[in-house]
Amino acid sequence: MKLAVIGVGLIGGSFALALKQARKVSKVVGVGRNAANLKLALERGIIDAIAPDPAAAARDADLVLVAAPVAQFPAIFGSLAESKGLITDGGSTKRDVIAAARKALGKRIARFVPAHPIAGAEKSGAAAAKAELFQHRRVVLTPLKENAKASVAAVEAAWSACGAKVSRMDAEEHDAVLAAVSHLPHVLAYALVHDVAKRNNSAQLFSFAAGGFRDFTRIASSHPEMWRDICLANRDRLLQELKLYANELGSIRKLIDKGDGAGLEKLFAAAREARDKWIHSS
Amino acid sequence: MKLAVIGVGLIGGSFALALKQARKVSKVVGVGRNAANLKLALERGIIDAIAPDPAAAARDADLVLVAAPVAQFPAIFGSLAESKGLITDGGSTKRDVIAAARKALGKRIARFVPAHPIAGAEKSGAAAAKAELFQHRRVVLTPLKENAKASVAAVEAAWSACGAKVSRMDAEEHDAVLAAVSHLPHVLAYALVHDVAKRNNSAQLFSFAAGGFRDFTRIASSHPEMWRDICLANRDRLLQELKLYANELGSIRKLIDKGDGAGLEKLFAAAREARDKWIHSS
Repeated sequence: MKLAVIGVGLIGGSFALALKQARKVSKVVGVGRNAANLKLALERGIIDAIAPDPAAAARDADLVLVAAPVAQFPAIFGSLAESKGLITDGGSTKRDVIAAARKALGKRIARFVPAHPIAGAEKSGAAAAKAELFQHRRVVLTPLKENAKASVAAVEAAWSACGAKVSRMDAEEHDAVLAAVSHLPHVLAYALVHDVAKRNNSAQLFSFAAGGFRDFTRIASSHPEMWRDICLANRDRLLQELKLYANELGSIRKLIDKGDGAGLEKLFAAAREARDKWIHSS
Repeated sequence: MKLAVIGVGLIGGSFALALKQARKVSKVVGVGRNAANLKLALERGIIDAIAPDPAAAARDADLVLVAAPVAQFPAIFGSLAESKGLITDGGSTKRDVIAAARKALGKRIARFVPAHPIAGAEKSGAAAAKAELFQHRRVVLTPLKENAKASVAAVEAAWSACGAKVSRMDAEEHDAVLAAVSHLPHVLAYALVHDVAKRNNSAQLFSFAAGGFRDFTRIASSHPEMWRDICLANRDRLLQELKLYANELGSIRKLIDKGDGAGLEKLFAAAREARDKWIHSS
């Protein structure tokens, strides 16, 4: 099987490495915007050849993975219109990606099986790619009504070969769920760091920040362009989540303001219990 | 030197273990509300004896560490009024602790050298105590004008013997700084978990939460009573921080709402840069 990877970063590079390790692909062609990154991917054996553009990369590919920031998907899908292989992707949002694919691929949309590997990290680029990234991680497929069963099965098999736990979901539902547990926390973490960093005494503030602050803000070291695109692509759902969160924070502010210790302790204890239950079951 | 520990939890237990390991104390007497926890502390060699109350524990002590949730400090200081040794504490807020000490100790206030070891964890109790907890961690002393230089030096020496980096700060400034980099993030993390946990589809939401959510919410597994007390003790500063954070979040919401990709990317990049700079320098 020949694989084309459009965007050889953390996700694209790890997908190539995992499928090579599982001996599911014989050749990987990579394409991307950053020549130094592609060179590193070649040196690391992540890809075997560099193509000048997505169309050239996909020409003889049995499978194409699109793993660029989602705002680039319309242009990339546009250049994949003439390709023959199956296409999957690594985008963190699905409604916008599917809309872009429909527009660009037209009647050939059946070849595209959308996927979201929930395996992000604050590190990016081919340097961060590793064969085991998807081990025991969730990958959500949001199949289209046009997809042949065999196509969905083939894409599922590829992600499974990477060690992922694959499940299926409606694209609408996917975007709502991920807005709550992934997109919102990223925005909250960026907001806290920015809130501290913009102050006159930021150096002092950072110097007294400890492990709690470090872990809370880890995702604020994520790729700014990728997260810009996610925020815009999932705008309606994210705005809804921001509203719910602001309401929650408003309730807590009121408890603090009126000195309601019992109310605060009850809320904190409920949160701790829910989190501990999740941690122990996951 | 004989040490009395009021509240043999993560902080109190670790202080005792560290000073024992450094051979700075010969005997540790512990006191607390939870008999099973004290028994465990005795079994683990954290303390050598259990006292029935703070007054009895402190009677012959050269140094007393008060390491209970801060709402208990007024009562504890009340029972330390007749003790003779130096007193320090592990409270995360300092203005309220100092006010409680002044009220209870009166003219004997000079014996109390306030301290805040910035070494919390989401684990609590004697089971979580460890001699190396304070290694390379910051401890902030907020000395009082009544303190003799020798008393401050003696308390500083004890925390330094635990491996901590000790610095000094005004209590007002301490509470403002910690509200921003510690108290606020704890409230934000509790809020996110509670926001997710209270929904009808919380099980589904948690099942798609990944590493980013886990690290972001780690501090939401912290001790609810302890954090209730901190929120109320530092209420004015925390409310101010919640207001600033709500403003920050409002700005980001506006950028998302109007689709300002350049503005979002700039803000995310500034946050990432500030965080990465902090991580590499700390």
